[in-house]
Amino acid sequence: MALAPGPRAGNLVTRAERIQAAENYERVRGSILEAGGEVVDVDAANALAWLGSGEAESLAALLDAHPAVSWVQLPWAGVDEFISSGLFQRPVTFTSAKGALADQVAEHALLLALASMRHVVAQARHRHWLEAEPESLHGKRVTIVGGGGIGRTVIRLLSPLTRNIVVLRRQTEAIPGAATTRPITDLHAVLPETDVLILALALTAQTHGIVGGRELSLLPAHAILVNVARGAHVDTDALVSALREREIAAAGLDVTDPEPLPPNHPLWDFDNVLITSHCADSVAFVSEQLAKRIRENIGRFKQGQPLAGVVDPLAGY
Amino acid sequence: MALAPGPRAGNLVTRAERIQAAENYERVRGSILEAGGEVVDVDAANALAWLGSGEAESLAALLDAHPAVSWVQLPWAGVDEFISSGLFQRPVTFTSAKGALADQVAEHALLLALASMRHVVAQARHRHWLEAEPESLHGKRVTIVGGGGIGRTVIRLLSPLTRNIVVLRRQTEAIPGAATTRPITDLHAVLPETDVLILALALTAQTHGIVGGRELSLLPAHAILVNVARGAHVDTDALVSALREREIAAAGLDVTDPEPLPPNHPLWDFDNVLITSHCADSVAFVSEQLAKRIRENIGRFKQGQPLAGVVDPLAGY
Repeated sequence: MALAPGPRAGNLVTRAERIQAAENYERVRGSILEAGGEVVDVDAANALAWLGSGEAESLAALLDAHPAVSWVQLPWAGVDEFISSGLFQRPVTFTSAKGALADQVAEHALLLALASMRHVVAQARHRHWLEAEPESLHGKRVTIVGGGGIGRTVIRLLSPLTRNIVVLRRQTEAIPGAATTRPITDLHAVLPETDVLILALALTAQTHGIVGGRELSLLPAHAILVNVARGAHVDTDALVSALREREIAAAGLDVTDPEPLPPNHPLWDFDNVLITSHCADSVAFVSEQLAKRIRENIGRFKQGQPLAGVVDPLAGY
Repeated sequence: MALAPGPRAGNLVTRAERIQAAENYERVRGSILEAGGEVVDVDAANALAWLGSGEAESLAALLDAHPAVSWVQLPWAGVDEFISSGLFQRPVTFTSAKGALADQVAEHALLLALASMRHVVAQARHRHWLEAEPESLHGKRVTIVGGGGIGRTVIRLLSPLTRNIVVLRRQTEAIPGAATTRPITDLHAVLPETDVLILALALTAQTHGIVGGRELSLLPAHAILVNVARGAHVDTDALVSALREREIAAAGLDVTDPEPLPPNHPLWDFDNVLITSHCADSVAFVSEQLAKRIRENIGRFKQGQPLAGVVDPLAGY
């Protein structure tokens, strides 16, 4: 297995940069060796661990030049950065970290929901005593869009607080722990009966802008929106407008569109919007989980077994 | 049963004032009637629902003047405001709302822990993208001081995240769900092995200042402190000093000493301290739970059964 692109050096500021730091390369290299694989130059490789942040064109060029590479492990759960380049059309198996990062992302969704219901941004910004009336998650009607690892873990974390959970998903198989599982096409029917809307789905052409002005207006005025998926799931201008018109009560966003959110963006002005800067999962956790998945997949690859976290080119995740 | 003092009118700002609003009086009055009790003037009463915020001297004077009152229901879970007046020394049964408010207070403790580990104050205050490395509650070592309703509910809420929980309490009976239950005198032994310290105990002469400079220095530097009990459990100056010296990583405080915390207090300056203004439980919830407890206790009182939430004058809660 080859590793590319090379590790970053210097002043690593963003999470994407820090994932590419030398120590994480060493961890991934170690996981390949532990699983009985070899770390080789890409010219001699039949598999590739791509640790770059996006850079789909570089990856495509590398694969064009090295047709012997039949499997590529990508570092994140979401692969939307790679879709538009047509990367997934070639006869190569792509695997992502999907599912592996769910624990921390779901924990972050719980935080964003609680913080939104308990006025944390106002409390943090106003440096004086400010008695507020909290909302409680106990018994609340939660709608989770997305039936993957994050959604399932959110259900588990919410279970002591509420079991009144609807999951909306593309597939029809019921999700354990959810009160009901419905097709994603039922979104408009479910929104008026939703207290907390949690976005935990993959970004594809079909789910881009899934929450716009219409959807926000269908939510009750006391509803809160939590997004731990991708910023582009939400029409940002529509969200700003809905918050101004008090069509929803609050939002907790780990992701935004655009991202990074510019300092002068109106979303920063709301005392009922908590923005965390796409940092639901820690660099240490991502690096650890990636090494674990690579270890597992090397073993499977060697034995010709199905790999974990295979990207479905048609579904786009 | 009599109700005193009378409902507050006018501009009700604080939670204590809003609990005394006319609508809550009506709810309590309704709960007395529903349980088959009568609402009478205190001259004709054998029981009293005291809905005032503290005002121990007024209550003591009322009881002195009406020795036929043999039971007093207090509105909050904590009764520390009443202890110093010697109120509990008289031959009257006092009941509080202890246990009844645990659901929302424990939920708030979970929020404070998550927010402290995920840098929420810094994210809320700095209105620009600020990538941060979160800590996760998964598998963390949590020490809960206090084995009452709040502590037990915190264990339940944490159970999907960690079961590595030590409860410290006065009594020796083990708490369900805790990995271990130890006497409160083991505090110093447990602190160095604590990632998250949650205070959920009653304020008494024995627990006043239970967390001071010594205790904070015994915690690991990555530890966080959560206080949903009473501000006076913590030596505030020692906490400020420990935060300055980075002896602990963060704090989430729903209660402070003094309270309200003055606007110029140094605790407001820390970007790793979330202060919520003693609003873990909502006015609506407190009022609802109080009506429920009064309904239950009227039934028990009429049948000569033991009341719920009886204050132990020796323990002080």
